[in-house]
Amino acid sequence: MTDCQGDGEGTMSPMELFEKLNAQGEKVRSLKSAKAEKGEIDAAVQLLLKLKVDYKQMTGQDYKAGCPPSENLIMSNNGPAADDCDGEDLVDPWNVSASSTKGVDYDKLIVRFGSSKIDKELLERIEKVSGQRAHHFLRRGIFFSHRDMHQILDAYEKHKSFYLYTGRGPSSEAMHVGHLIPFIFTKWLQDVFDIPLVVQMTDDEKYLWKDLTLEECHRFTVENAKDIIACGFDVNKTFIFSDLDYMGASPQFYRNVVKVQKHVTFNQVKGIFGFTDSDCIGKISFPAIQAAPSFSSSFPQIFGGKKDVPCLIPCAIDQDPYFRMTRDVAPRIGLLKPALLHSTFFPALQGAQTKMSASDPNSSIFLTDTPKQIKNKINKHAFSGGKDTVEEHRKYGGNTEVDVSFLYLTFFLEDDEKLEKIKEDYTSGALLTGELKKILIETLQPMIAQHQERRKQVTDEMVQQFMTPRPLNYKF
Amino acid sequence: MTDCQGDGEGTMSPMELFEKLNAQGEKVRSLKSAKAEKGEIDAAVQLLLKLKVDYKQMTGQDYKAGCPPSENLIMSNNGPAADDCDGEDLVDPWNVSASSTKGVDYDKLIVRFGSSKIDKELLERIEKVSGQRAHHFLRRGIFFSHRDMHQILDAYEKHKSFYLYTGRGPSSEAMHVGHLIPFIFTKWLQDVFDIPLVVQMTDDEKYLWKDLTLEECHRFTVENAKDIIACGFDVNKTFIFSDLDYMGASPQFYRNVVKVQKHVTFNQVKGIFGFTDSDCIGKISFPAIQAAPSFSSSFPQIFGGKKDVPCLIPCAIDQDPYFRMTRDVAPRIGLLKPALLHSTFFPALQGAQTKMSASDPNSSIFLTDTPKQIKNKINKHAFSGGKDTVEEHRKYGGNTEVDVSFLYLTFFLEDDEKLEKIKEDYTSGALLTGELKKILIETLQPMIAQHQERRKQVTDEMVQQFMTPRPLNYKF
Repeated sequence: MTDCQGDGEGTMSPMELFEKLNAQGEKVRSLKSAKAEKGEIDAAVQLLLKLKVDYKQMTGQDYKAGCPPSENLIMSNNGPAADDCDGEDLVDPWNVSASSTKGVDYDKLIVRFGSSKIDKELLERIEKVSGQRAHHFLRRGIFFSHRDMHQILDAYEKHKSFYLYTGRGPSSEAMHVGHLIPFIFTKWLQDVFDIPLVVQMTDDEKYLWKDLTLEECHRFTVENAKDIIACGFDVNKTFIFSDLDYMGASPQFYRNVVKVQKHVTFNQVKGIFGFTDSDCIGKISFPAIQAAPSFSSSFPQIFGGKKDVPCLIPCAIDQDPYFRMTRDVAPRIGLLKPALLHSTFFPALQGAQTKMSASDPNSSIFLTDTPKQIKNKINKHAFSGGKDTVEEHRKYGGNTEVDVSFLYLTFFLEDDEKLEKIKEDYTSGALLTGELKKILIETLQPMIAQHQERRKQVTDEMVQQFMTPRPLNYKF
Repeated sequence: MTDCQGDGEGTMSPMELFEKLNAQGEKVRSLKSAKAEKGEIDAAVQLLLKLKVDYKQMTGQDYKAGCPPSENLIMSNNGPAADDCDGEDLVDPWNVSASSTKGVDYDKLIVRFGSSKIDKELLERIEKVSGQRAHHFLRRGIFFSHRDMHQILDAYEKHKSFYLYTGRGPSSEAMHVGHLIPFIFTKWLQDVFDIPLVVQMTDDEKYLWKDLTLEECHRFTVENAKDIIACGFDVNKTFIFSDLDYMGASPQFYRNVVKVQKHVTFNQVKGIFGFTDSDCIGKISFPAIQAAPSFSSSFPQIFGGKKDVPCLIPCAIDQDPYFRMTRDVAPRIGLLKPALLHSTFFPALQGAQTKMSASDPNSSIFLTDTPKQIKNKINKHAFSGGKDTVEEHRKYGGNTEVDVSFLYLTFFLEDDEKLEKIKEDYTSGALLTGELKKILIETLQPMIAQHQERRKQVTDEMVQQFMTPRPLNYKF
C-alpha cells in the first residue's frame, strides 16, 4: 500500500513543489528588478520553467501563483476534478495536506468520497454482532467512515464468514507509531470476528515510486513484516505477502491482476490517481495489484478457490481511491466488491495538518525510538494547544482539538474515563501542557518498549512462516 | 516527483531526449502564444536549441517533430504518425498493410526501423561460424533484417553461448502455415548452434486485446504449444511458457517485468505502439512482459541466475517495436540488449498486401486443413500472377513477384534448383498458373499431413513437460 509517509530523499510533495515555485518566481522577479546579469537571470528563469514542467507532471495542472495544489489531485471517477482554488484538503495515496490546523475535514471527505459515516447505529450493530465492546478507535471516531459494512455484518449474522485485507508500503526500514493504527485495529477485528487476514506489502509499488532498488524494497518488506507480526498476529490466521514474491508464486493472483487491468483505462487512473503521460507504465498499471487481494480467488491456498468470500479492508482514508476503483471493476469481472473501514490520519508531532513523515525523524515517534528519544521529541516537537504562559493557561485553558499530545492519547490511551478527565482538566486549565506531555510520554514509553520486546522475539523463520503461501486455520 | 527514468544514472535514451524536445517545443509555443516575458521565452528557446544539438549529437539525425529517432521508430496504430514521417506501409504488432501489391517494402522498413540488412557477408559468417549451409529462409531473404547478429557470432566464436527467444500470441486454436515460419527457423538455429530456447505464449496479451476469457486464452496456449512441439523441438533444450502461468511461477520474471515497467513511460508506449488514453492499463503495461524474456535472469532455472547470457530473438518484423523498446531500456537496468533476426510476413492467399488472418479461414492454409481443403483453397483463393488467358500467359509469362503460390514455394520448397526452374518456367509462360498451383498443393499436402501426424503424437504430458519451469541440458 502507499502511504504518504515521506516521499524519500529528493522527492517533493505537490505542496512543497508549489512553495519552491513561489520562491523561485520571487527570485526571478527580484533578480530582474535588481537588474542582475543576464546569465544569472536566464539560469533562474530556466529553473523556474523546469519546476513548472515538474509541477504540471506531478499535479496535471498548470502552476498558478496563489493557487496551491488541492482538489486537483483528487480523484473523481468521473472526469477531471475541480480546478478552482478553494482551499480544500488534499488527500490521495501519496499526499495529505489539510487547509486547517485542526486537520482534514473528515465530514467533507465522506461527502466527497461518497462513503458513509460510521454512526451510532453501526457502532451498536458491530458490538451486537461481535458480542464485544467496540474498539476505542471506533468509539472515538478514529475509524470514522465505511463502505458496505452493514453487508459484511448481514452476512456474518447468517454465518457467512469474510476476510480482512490490509497492507503496508515498505518505503523504509523504520515504521512510526502512526503505521501501527491499521494493524492494531485489524488485530482487534480478527480477534472479535475470528477470520483470516491477508497483509499486502507493496514492495513493487515502492520500487516504482521511489529511488530504491528491488532488493532494498524487498528488505524493507521483511523488516516491516517483523513490526507487523509484533502486533500479535496469529500465524495460523494470517498471511503476509510481498508483491515481488507473491506475484511470482500465484498464477491466480496474477490472473486477477490481469482481469482488473483489462477493465480499467488510462483515462480512469488519470482521473482517480492523477497520473500523467510522463508516468512510467508500472505506476499506471499498479492500482490493479493493490486491487487484486480484495478478491478471495487471489488466495486459493486459503479459500480453496472460492470466489465469493467477502473482503473487509481496514485502511486510512487516503487508500480509498484504490478501492473505489476496485469496487467499480468488481461486478464487471464477476467478483464481489470489497467493504471498507476508513481511519483518519495520524497527525505529525508538529500538528494535524499533515500525516507523519518517515523522512523527517522529528515529525514522528518511531518504533525504534528509545524512552529518552520519545521524551525529548514530545517535549520539544509536539504541537501544544496550551496557552503561552502558565497564568494564561490556568485562566483560559488549553485546546485539545489541536494539541498533538492529546490527539496521540486518543489513539493510545485506552481508558475512556481517564481520557475524558484529561480533556476536562486541560480545557479548564487545571492540567498544564508539560503535565499533558508527561502523560503521553508515560503512555508511549512502555507501549513502544513492549513493541520492541515483542519484535525481538520475531525470528526470520517466523517471518518466513507468515510469508509462505499456505492454508490458514479456516475451512471455506 | 514522478520521474521514473532512473534519474540517478543521468543517461537519456534518444527516445527520452526526443520526448524532452517535444515538450520543450510545446513550452516555447505556449509561452509565445501567451505573450510571456521576453526573457522567459529566450530561456526556453535557448534550452530548445541546446536539446536539438544534443539530439543531433546522440542520434546523428536532425530533430523533426513527429518523427521519432529511428532506433525507437515507431508505427502507430492510428496511421497519422506514419504519414507524418513517410506515408508508407503500416507495420506494427497488430497491423500490417502494404501500399503495393508486391507487399511491404522491406528495404525501406530497415531504414525506418533502424535495423541492418542481412547481407552476403553476414550470411557467409553465419555459415562459417555454424559450420552449416544457411537455411533457405536466410538464403532467400525471408529472414532479411537483424540487430547485433555480429555480436552474437563474435561471442559464440569465443565459446560464449547465447539463447533463443521467440513466441506466439495464442488467439485461437488454429494455427496456419505462416505461424510455423519463426518456429521452423528457430528450430534450425537451435540445431546448428545447440543452445537453449524459450518460447513465450502471450495468453495474457490475447486476453487483454481480444474478446476472450482467461480460460480460452490459456486453452489456446496449450493447443498452440502442441503445434510448436510438433515442429520437432527437443524437450531437454526448450522451455515453452504461458504468461498467465509463468508470471505466477517465477519471482525473477516478475522482477524483470517491474524493472522494465519502471523505465518506460506512457509517452513512450504511446509513441511506440500508438496506445491512447482509452486503452486499458493492462495493454499499456504489457510491453514489459514481452520484453522480460529477453533477459536471461528471467529464467534462473535455466541460466542459474546468470544475468549476462545474450539473447537472440527470431521473429517477424512487426514484433520489432517491442524489442526496440527493450533494447532502449536494457542498458538502463544493467542488462544486455537482445539481438534480433527479422522475417518478412507470410502473405495471405489473397495477396502479399497483408498477413494471413486466423479469423478468415479462406485467407490461410491451416495446420488442421485436409488435403482436399488445401487443394480447394489454393485453387480457389491463391492470388495468381499469371495472365488472364492461356494464350496471353504463354506469350507474356507470369509474375512471380506477386504470385502467392510461387511466394509460398519460396517458403516451403527447399530445393533451390527446382524453385529456380519453376521461376524461369512461370516467367517465360511455359508453366501455367494451374500447374504452379499443383506444385504448391503437392508440396503443402504432405508437409501438413506430416505435421498433423507429429502433432497427434504430442500428449498432454509432453506439453506439461515442455511447460514446466526446470533446468535444460545446458550448464551456465
